[in-house]
Amino acid sequence: MSFDALWAALAPIGRVASGGYRRFAWTPVDTVLREWFAGEARSRRLDLVTDRAGNQWAWWGSPTPDRPGVVAGSHLDSVPDGGAFDGPLGVVSAFCAVDLLRSRGFEPVRPVGIACFGDEEGARFGVACAGSRLVTGALPADRGLALTDGDGVSMATAMQAAGVDPSAVGRDDEAMRLVAAFIELHVEQGRGLVDLGRPIAVGSSILAHGRWRLDLAGEANHAGTTRLEDRRDPMIDLAAAVSTARSAARARACVATVGKVVVVPNGVNAIPSSVTAWLDARGDAARAVAADVGHAAGTEPVEESYMPDTRFDRILVTRLSRLLGDAPVLGTGAGHDAGILAAAGVPAAMLFVRNPTGVSHSPAEHAEREDCLAGVDALAAVIADLAG
Amino acid sequence: MSFDALWAALAPIGRVASGGYRRFAWTPVDTVLREWFAGEARSRRLDLVTDRAGNQWAWWGSPTPDRPGVVAGSHLDSVPDGGAFDGPLGVVSAFCAVDLLRSRGFEPVRPVGIACFGDEEGARFGVACAGSRLVTGALPADRGLALTDGDGVSMATAMQAAGVDPSAVGRDDEAMRLVAAFIELHVEQGRGLVDLGRPIAVGSSILAHGRWRLDLAGEANHAGTTRLEDRRDPMIDLAAAVSTARSAARARACVATVGKVVVVPNGVNAIPSSVTAWLDARGDAARAVAADVGHAAGTEPVEESYMPDTRFDRILVTRLSRLLGDAPVLGTGAGHDAGILAAAGVPAAMLFVRNPTGVSHSPAEHAEREDCLAGVDALAAVIADLAG
Repeated sequence: MSFDALWAALAPIGRVASGGYRRFAWTPVDTVLREWFAGEARSRRLDLVTDRAGNQWAWWGSPTPDRPGVVAGSHLDSVPDGGAFDGPLGVVSAFCAVDLLRSRGFEPVRPVGIACFGDEEGARFGVACAGSRLVTGALPADRGLALTDGDGVSMATAMQAAGVDPSAVGRDDEAMRLVAAFIELHVEQGRGLVDLGRPIAVGSSILAHGRWRLDLAGEANHAGTTRLEDRRDPMIDLAAAVSTARSAARARACVATVGKVVVVPNGVNAIPSSVTAWLDARGDAARAVAADVGHAAGTEPVEESYMPDTRFDRILVTRLSRLLGDAPVLGTGAGHDAGILAAAGVPAAMLFVRNPTGVSHSPAEHAEREDCLAGVDALAAVIADLAG
Repeated sequence: MSFDALWAALAPIGRVASGGYRRFAWTPVDTVLREWFAGEARSRRLDLVTDRAGNQWAWWGSPTPDRPGVVAGSHLDSVPDGGAFDGPLGVVSAFCAVDLLRSRGFEPVRPVGIACFGDEEGARFGVACAGSRLVTGALPADRGLALTDGDGVSMATAMQAAGVDPSAVGRDDEAMRLVAAFIELHVEQGRGLVDLGRPIAVGSSILAHGRWRLDLAGEANHAGTTRLEDRRDPMIDLAAAVSTARSAARARACVATVGKVVVVPNGVNAIPSSVTAWLDARGDAARAVAADVGHAAGTEPVEESYMPDTRFDRILVTRLSRLLGDAPVLGTGAGHDAGILAAAGVPAAMLFVRNPTGVSHSPAEHAEREDCLAGVDALAAVIADLAG
């Protein structure tokens, strides 16, 4: 099946009025995406395996711990109103690369796998890369299953509702031992390739990255009758947090974002009783930025997740760059399942496909068709090199 | 029926886990409150009338344009997680005052009415005092009915769902001509009476008051990969709006609050595509504060409502103060139906009942039982004076 046909089949699933996507873990939309993956595996006579964390694997050949396979893949879930490319491009390209290799009569020496990791964005339960963290043990099963979404539904309950047994969830060393190398192709989330005039890059590293929750307490009161000096208004602390996040990130060579805010009771004429805000900060000094923000807002930031910087396998990165015509080697500020696997000791690397605007996590996220096809070619070349 | 029994009957209706109330216009909870009012009117053999805006009136005696009545009352709806007293105290006290006068054998010369205005807080559709604004024509029917709640439900649709015909809604001069004077008893929303050591005050005026919407536009993008200098992050504009609201209010002798914020898409790792915030500002320079805030946030504030300051009928205020043992005369920053009626030419005044903390629009809002009973006595004295 062609890239275009695969892309068109995915396009309507979970699409919302904004033109973006709401594909959240363990929802009915997520089930449709999992069924799509299973169907594509079946139609190619690939062996479908679901690991203990609910991640899907489609195998061409039978991997064993003694003869592990070369795996390409990414994820299908999205952030709220996310774009079409972040995740799906890597999964679709992996299927297309297998098709391309088969059409050329390629016979793999090692098994070749296609992986689809669950809940990469963490949009529902707040922990990014939950599928790869669970399977590698970076996220203990009990902690993962107890995470709750905005409606108070736990991941365990959500999995059950999706027909998956949460009691089986856990670190799955057996699944990991079947992976000789993992290559994640991904739309670039910046303008590195645009500036270089190149369609494809090899990923070198992922910035240190953390998420902190800021619990800003106030005192609910009437907006019209409470003197300014009598107020405990947590919105004022939010303002301090937001402006300090920006200034501290600039001063410390990081990026920092307050992208999510929950105000209680959120009434026009009520001073809020509380504001909860989430800080996303990346770079070597991310923890120092979080401390600055907490200091400015008068609260102790609660660290919900933290990953130190991850460097992909240097030998693999060099080999891929050379193989792809001395493709540029770029770092990224975005977290990825490839980073989680690399941190767990799996040789991993990434390929980036040019993004004309650099925009991602938005309906405007895009990659030109020609560049997507170049990505498929590159991924096929990498698989052929590593599994041939 | 005693004050305590009336209070206890209302207490559970619309109560939420916070200990506060969610009593929003044209919801099932609102219908229960309206039925409670109708039942109390019935049990006292008062004539129940619903005006064209859905406000309820219970009449002791039959008012005519030539012999209009003295009306006491307030509202039963609440802000999100509001307190028990703001609104209900005035309605319950009005019923109790009628009971007290009857028990004393009082025979009114003029009819006496009890009014319950709908949608005073504007918590659902964003316009405060919607019931009194509709009935006086301050809010045209077509504009009111087209207002929508957070789920996109219009007031017209909500009324229909509550079994009320929206096509009848409109300015109701006939209903207004039946009101000789309106007295709204209300829990004080500040500490004026605490400081003075008095239980009851007479209201003199309501500050100028406006609401503005701030539409802050950004560009959705990835929180980890977008350089600070490439961002259009509306959260930064929100921070500027919030801190300017505070500083401009202080400089201009006003109060200003950003109590409601809606972030889209509201994801931890996404720079928002938009933030919408609402500014509530009160005082003579409220419009100048809104202009300052808009300037700081780089947007033109949309004025959703504005009321210049309202002075209650001076002769009435003086009369009531003298009648109540030279009760103190206090202004307020809160809007009230009494202010809307006063602005429409109805002689109106307010009584305030001491609030030990000054807190309102919060579950902590309170008035001591003894002060509530003093409020009933005062209201009965006022009705007897005006209708006797």
